[in-house]
Amino acid sequence: MSGTTLDDYTGRYASRVHGMAQSEIRALFSVASRPEVVSLAGGNPYTAALPMDELGEMFTRLLSQVGAEALGYCPGQGSVALRESLCGVLELSGIRASADDLVLTTGAQQGLDLLARTFLDPGDIVLAEGPTYVGALGAFQAAQADVRHLPMDDDGLVPAGLEEGLAALEREGRRAKFLYTIPTYQNPAGVTMTEDRREEILAIAERHGLLIIEDDPYSMISFDGTPPAPLRARADRGVIYLGTVSKIFAAGLRLGWVLAPPAVRDKLLLAIEASILCPSGLTQEATLRFLTEMEWRQQVKVFNTLYRDRRDALLAALGDYMPEGMTWTVPGGGLFIWATLPDGLDSKAMLPRALQERVAYVPGTGFYADGNGRREMRLNFSTQTAEAIREGVRRLAGVVAGDIELRDTFAGGAA
Amino acid sequence: MSGTTLDDYTGRYASRVHGMAQSEIRALFSVASRPEVVSLAGGNPYTAALPMDELGEMFTRLLSQVGAEALGYCPGQGSVALRESLCGVLELSGIRASADDLVLTTGAQQGLDLLARTFLDPGDIVLAEGPTYVGALGAFQAAQADVRHLPMDDDGLVPAGLEEGLAALEREGRRAKFLYTIPTYQNPAGVTMTEDRREEILAIAERHGLLIIEDDPYSMISFDGTPPAPLRARADRGVIYLGTVSKIFAAGLRLGWVLAPPAVRDKLLLAIEASILCPSGLTQEATLRFLTEMEWRQQVKVFNTLYRDRRDALLAALGDYMPEGMTWTVPGGGLFIWATLPDGLDSKAMLPRALQERVAYVPGTGFYADGNGRREMRLNFSTQTAEAIREGVRRLAGVVAGDIELRDTFAGGAA
Repeated sequence: MSGTTLDDYTGRYASRVHGMAQSEIRALFSVASRPEVVSLAGGNPYTAALPMDELGEMFTRLLSQVGAEALGYCPGQGSVALRESLCGVLELSGIRASADDLVLTTGAQQGLDLLARTFLDPGDIVLAEGPTYVGALGAFQAAQADVRHLPMDDDGLVPAGLEEGLAALEREGRRAKFLYTIPTYQNPAGVTMTEDRREEILAIAERHGLLIIEDDPYSMISFDGTPPAPLRARADRGVIYLGTVSKIFAAGLRLGWVLAPPAVRDKLLLAIEASILCPSGLTQEATLRFLTEMEWRQQVKVFNTLYRDRRDALLAALGDYMPEGMTWTVPGGGLFIWATLPDGLDSKAMLPRALQERVAYVPGTGFYADGNGRREMRLNFSTQTAEAIREGVRRLAGVVAGDIELRDTFAGGAA
Repeated sequence: MSGTTLDDYTGRYASRVHGMAQSEIRALFSVASRPEVVSLAGGNPYTAALPMDELGEMFTRLLSQVGAEALGYCPGQGSVALRESLCGVLELSGIRASADDLVLTTGAQQGLDLLARTFLDPGDIVLAEGPTYVGALGAFQAAQADVRHLPMDDDGLVPAGLEEGLAALEREGRRAKFLYTIPTYQNPAGVTMTEDRREEILAIAERHGLLIIEDDPYSMISFDGTPPAPLRARADRGVIYLGTVSKIFAAGLRLGWVLAPPAVRDKLLLAIEASILCPSGLTQEATLRFLTEMEWRQQVKVFNTLYRDRRDALLAALGDYMPEGMTWTVPGGGLFIWATLPDGLDSKAMLPRALQERVAYVPGTGFYADGNGRREMRLNFSTQTAEAIREGVRRLAGVVAGDIELRDTFAGGAA
């Protein structure tokens, strides 16, 4: 036995390391990516729908025109031209921003990480929807924060739940550092905060001096009309806004941004320089050209048409195959549906049986910091064809039916 | 007056924010990049020497062959094929590594940040050469560590100085979390740790159970023969090794790596997933193709020939123009020369006068955590032509001579 797998470093790690655990989604990837498995566990946009030849020409032009700059170091805040161009994109959602207030990041994930590092001391409290984005939980937990979930329904975060959460904190003599929310086509829940709720949530936040971090990766991935305007379009103070090109262009570029008030932006800049110096100049320039030289809004329509068909296929298959007692959300956009198993079933315990039947999903527990989500699961509809999705749901329905039978047998027969 | 520049968030920031300050190098960039200024303050490799047409063709092939994968999310550890290919590159320096033990990062800077987050609690002690890489100071200070500098001479880190530093800590009842070192063509000092010193440093570290973090971005940027093998080639336990393609290919790809024992690698993986999910799949694939489809070793020779001429031009100009009392290092590779002003001069105070004379450099204080470096400066030779370098040094020598005169006048005339 070689000694190299022993941990010689125990006792040398920083205390924050102990709060970090592998996300359940990551652990799943190797099994779920086997070709015989229909994976509803993914989260990748369907990048195969991008015009690769046109992109090849764009990169060739880019390198011949500005190759030396794009391949060198760039300012920590990122390219001014790209930031200006992104302000134009934000304007489409009603957000008025100055290029000065944007910080470009290695995907929106890094925006979350920089905000966590800027605002969170160990033990600090963060409010978030339950369930919420697993990567946000990872970033907040790496900063040793304590995430408290707030209730959500088909209309998004419940204002009364936020009020109660804040009142509970007040009784404890505590204060939340911020509210983290994904109002539109939420990951994983697939629900959208209504117009009225947005105004209510903002009013509550203002009354309590609560900072809001709005994560908005999906609002352009929309199937049934335009979603309500982002929180940041309604209030420019008190809302820090995160965006990304991962869903409208390509996640592999790792290009996101944080829109923050000047004082916060300055802290984020220091944090990004300490962590990566600057995001890739090459992927910044490619994004700039995607937004200025290519028909990017047409490309987003291509994605949306494709995803709408697949969402419809997933919804239809759920309706056709799933046994009584199973429920799910009906997203107007984004990449995910959130499903809840019949009472007494456990999505995590069921997963090995699902994989045996060659279908994968993400169990719900990964999307909560507090152990909730055992009856829930996330189903993705962006990576598989409509036919594969239907077949996957057929397999999954068989597994659910089997678990219901098992439950009823061991419960002494509920039938 | 608009309220938006006021800091509404004071009192809400994490305590680590207070340790973060803008690097002096970053602050300089805007002034130093004016066209009339000869900037010896840069740190960019000369990316204009890359074959842009060939790279354009490479990106076109890449996108048509594996575009969908390269533009999607990838595993947090990075592409297996690239990690295997990098193991081949490491072997050229005598390092035997398994692809499993490499974690790909957004430049080597992110490797430093991940290591800081993995090992450093507030108040922890890090040992480092004085001066040292400004980005390492940034990462360690963001983790609220206490950096203690160790003496260095023309042969690199001084073993007796390391012994003394360790003894001093022992007397305080403290322990260093690790030694951070750039043994080859050190940034900013331009010196290289000799063969014998490497063995001595490793022996001391082993005796004291001191973990070493070896940062090795420059060892292939070599002008006068091959440098001594890296520490990691001599000891596979107790040394964590950082590399990057920033100098052999392009910094704008933001592609680096950490080679670490499995236990540490696992922590780094958790940390990278929490901070960026994964590095760019596109720049990973481009790097793989640079290393497998292009004549990359030939490209490194192109860089080295170019930089050697420029280093020689800088050394010659320093010898020709600089007044008595000025000293500098003679690097065998890398991008930088470290110069020391005559006694009583101050490189930071002198900078405005230098900029007025249209020449820029980086004052030495930025490379120390303890306020040292006031007589020192870093001079870069990778970004300017030999002619521009000569002209820059001529201007700088005039400024130094002026400051000497000023000093002598105010000191009552030393002449």
